[in-house]
Amino acid sequence: MEPIALELFERPKLNRPIFVEGLPGVGSVGKIAIEHLIAELKPKKFAEILSKHFPPQVMVDQSGRIKMFTNDLYYLKRAGKSDIIFMSGDTQAITPDGQYELSDFIVNFISDLGAREVYTLGGYNVGKLVEKARVFGAGTSNELIEKAQKLGVVFKTDEPGGGIAGASGLILAFAEKKKIPSLCLLGETSGFFVDPKGAEATLGVLIKLIDVKVNLSELEERAKQVEKITQRIHEFEESLAKPGAPSKKENLGYFG
Amino acid sequence: MEPIALELFERPKLNRPIFVEGLPGVGSVGKIAIEHLIAELKPKKFAEILSKHFPPQVMVDQSGRIKMFTNDLYYLKRAGKSDIIFMSGDTQAITPDGQYELSDFIVNFISDLGAREVYTLGGYNVGKLVEKARVFGAGTSNELIEKAQKLGVVFKTDEPGGGIAGASGLILAFAEKKKIPSLCLLGETSGFFVDPKGAEATLGVLIKLIDVKVNLSELEERAKQVEKITQRIHEFEESLAKPGAPSKKENLGYFG
Amino acid sequence: MEPIALELFERPKLNRPIFVEGLPGVGSVGKIAIEHLIAELKPKKFAEILSKHFPPQVMVDQSGRIKMFTNDLYYLKRAGKSDIIFMSGDTQAITPDGQYELSDFIVNFISDLGAREVYTLGGYNVGKLVEKARVFGAGTSNELIEKAQKLGVVFKTDEPGGGIAGASGLILAFAEKKKIPSLCLLGETSGFFVDPKGAEATLGVLIKLIDVKVNLSELEERAKQVEKITQRIHEFEESLAKPGAPSKKENLGYFG
Amino acid sequence: MEPIALELFERPKLNRPIFVEGLPGVGSVGKIAIEHLIAELKPKKFAEILSKHFPPQVMVDQSGRIKMFTNDLYYLKRAGKSDIIFMSGDTQAITPDGQYELSDFIVNFISDLGAREVYTLGGYNVGKLVEKARVFGAGTSNELIEKAQKLGVVFKTDEPGGGIAGASGLILAFAEKKKIPSLCLLGETSGFFVDPKGAEATLGVLIKLIDVKVNLSELEERAKQVEKITQRIHEFEESLAKPGAPSKKENLGYFG
Repeated sequence: MEPIALELFERPKLNRPIFVEGLPGVGSVGKIAIEHLIAELKPKKFAEILSKHFPPQVMVDQSGRIKMFTNDLYYLKRAGKSDIIFMSGDTQAITPDGQYELSDFIVNFISDLGAREVYTLGGYNVGKLVEKARVFGAGTSNELIEKAQKLGVVFKTDEPGGGIAGASGLILAFAEKKKIPSLCLLGETSGFFVDPKGAEATLGVLIKLIDVKVNLSELEERAKQVEKITQRIHEFEESLAKPGAPSKKENLGYFG
Repeated sequence: MEPIALELFERPKLNRPIFVEGLPGVGSVGKIAIEHLIAELKPKKFAEILSKHFPPQVMVDQSGRIKMFTNDLYYLKRAGKSDIIFMSGDTQAITPDGQYELSDFIVNFISDLGAREVYTLGGYNVGKLVEKARVFGAGTSNELIEKAQKLGVVFKTDEPGGGIAGASGLILAFAEKKKIPSLCLLGETSGFFVDPKGAEATLGVLIKLIDVKVNLSELEERAKQVEKITQRIHEFEESLAKPGAPSKKENLGYFG
Repeated sequence: MEPIALELFERPKLNRPIFVEGLPGVGSVGKIAIEHLIAELKPKKFAEILSKHFPPQVMVDQSGRIKMFTNDLYYLKRAGKSDIIFMSGDTQAITPDGQYELSDFIVNFISDLGAREVYTLGGYNVGKLVEKARVFGAGTSNELIEKAQKLGVVFKTDEPGGGIAGASGLILAFAEKKKIPSLCLLGETSGFFVDPKGAEATLGVLIKLIDVKVNLSELEERAKQVEKITQRIHEFEESLAKPGAPSKKENLGYFG
Repeated sequence: MEPIALELFERPKLNRPIFVEGLPGVGSVGKIAIEHLIAELKPKKFAEILSKHFPPQVMVDQSGRIKMFTNDLYYLKRAGKSDIIFMSGDTQAITPDGQYELSDFIVNFISDLGAREVYTLGGYNVGKLVEKARVFGAGTSNELIEKAQKLGVVFKTDEPGGGIAGASGLILAFAEKKKIPSLCLLGETSGFFVDPKGAEATLGVLIKLIDVKVNLSELEERAKQVEKITQRIHEFEESLAKPGAPSKKENLGYFG
């Protein structure tokens, strides 16, 4: 078995394609975002990537059929505009060297397909509840960074602290080696749950950068539900802070 | 040393063989099931697989002789019916990539031997005591799934949650790549102890699918013993729930 | 860098050599035993093994000079008797696959040197203080097992439970593949500290099996010191068990 | 992707170069020291090393641009004296075998460049606050060891206990295989925080050994700040030890 195997259903001829990646990660922001794009734009699936760097298990779908973990590639043809390649997936590589190998493999593949721009999507964990999700950015091209700044993306020294982990970071790095301009968009998230707010904010920027029309109302709806839950948690926390209220410590005393 | 080494004692000519796998795993269900089949049907051992993906240790048998960890292959010739290949073993690969490599290796090997159907056996951990073990299924072939459903196997959306870990899942996935119809049967188990109940339930289905006659009475006997233990634990737990009884926490106080 | 590198200072011509291995492990029993043999018999060092499977660090000796982790090979010529190869070392491989690769490498090497018998030395952790250390055995040859039994070595079904971990087990297994009779001797140890008692007991058997004269008095002295410590711990534990004495739990209360 | 990739911007012709390494590690001593040298001496960067043994993430700089983890090589030409190669970096290899492979790779590379002496810099964690940082040493050459001893470097049996972990140790070991005299200097540090005191002490020795003029005043300033913090922690600890003062345990009582 090859460490990484590509199953190619079709080798598309693409016009100066833009590549957009969203894999599972912090708050599932990247995965929610890419799956919403795929559901809305209905690109055509043309390849699957398998790897022994993925978790050693299979998934089971609703009809009882098993499915290997894959990263999946789709293309969207656009008249008069750059085509788009989307990559979603069930997982990222679970070992450090697997992360490097897969990101390198993917960038080589999309480079062969002629990719001219790379966008990676992820979450930025702020570790606390977020009222309005900001979008943080990092990139390899001043031009893309400036474009994104004008759309409100935050590029600042101390954010994102600790860099960008996993595929969203390494794909950028390997794209830079191939001189493909690339940008990572990270939707702010508490990291506490699967977070459509960060995904919605990220897509709000991305759709302008890659010039697609996508209905975000479903994500907005899901984001509002998360906001309601956020609100309730805030109220609960405030009630704990009032005099006479049980202290947080007491409240957790049954763990003691 | 090759990462995976096959020691072939005999290369059997087999008639459209069915492959049945049972390796150590959840509740030891798969291992108990396959060892019962081997004890009853007395197939002939024809190969051993060694691997540096196995734990780095040896076992010691009753006469003081050491034994490497192996996965073992047996064949059973059947007049007028498909032959059967059984695979039991002391262990599964202990690394993620080793899991992929071994499952791929095994499927390549049995494919070369002409395998036409694949069954993998395992346990499904429900994390609580089970009165009557159900059998959950997943597969790569609608025909096998339908056959199993008629025998009471449960195929449903949210079970088994989290997919199928290890060889029982990946062997199915690689079998699918070779277009070999395959099915995984997972006997329900508490996961608390080695569980003959799940194995008995699984074998009850499997023997119909592969058309063998096997005396399950020994497994039933062992399953009844487990049921008695289960019953006693239930009674103990109920006594704890009564007013005036020591709380579970107090009862576990000596760990404190 | 090769995963395993052999530095050969001399390629000795050996007469039907016996191989004896003792590496760091449970209670350091094997390492103490082999180092005592080397100090007493003064065999000649003829090779070092380096490996990237060893810990990524160097040691510093008394003169401030660094030393890589190695496994070291020595030979002892004996007129009219089999020569002996000893292997000591600073470490074992720290990864499972490294354990397999190194054991395989070593057995290939000593097989090329003509090894006719293999002995591996280690500790058997009983998890409690040991008054008189027994020696447990396991092997690949009925003849060696019988010889060792006559010398008081214990070969029984349920001991050593869990098999033999690491080089002492895998070297036996690979020796068996080469049809070299082999035996593992495991000195009983509490596993609580570096344990000369287990090493002394093990050597007491080994020197008869390989027919060498070795002064064990130094090991006996060190073993007696351990016995004294053992005795004091026993007395302390007994004092805790007396009525009115602080319970063990209370005694450890400051961890609470 | 190669496991280790060298990006060579220029292949310098160097005169009997000295190699000096400082990578992240204990108390960041080596990294602070090498970065101070580079800031002061302004050597020219001529190569970057990438590796899948590095952490699978990228960093983001102040302008929002990403940067892969690298180890970086610089050269300094010196009229009438040995040239110097400096190696700094963002990280060390994160796997044991990666540590071996990278150290071997680096020594091969600098050996090809003609390196005649090797110095590695690191921290020696004493696990308690240090008033005046000593410099511990270890080496492969009696001549270098003696030189360093005269400069106050401590070479003693029981220090550094446990050897030297990571690149600073393994680079020495591989240099010894190439017969390049080498020395490791370890600045004493509490290991509690990034520690300029250990770096200052280490550089105080190194600059004499490699004959460079470097202004250490900035490091001294930062070291004094650390001393002040150290002083305050001492005073706080002493106040805890006074009768009537809260015990350390009570003081930490909020952890439950």
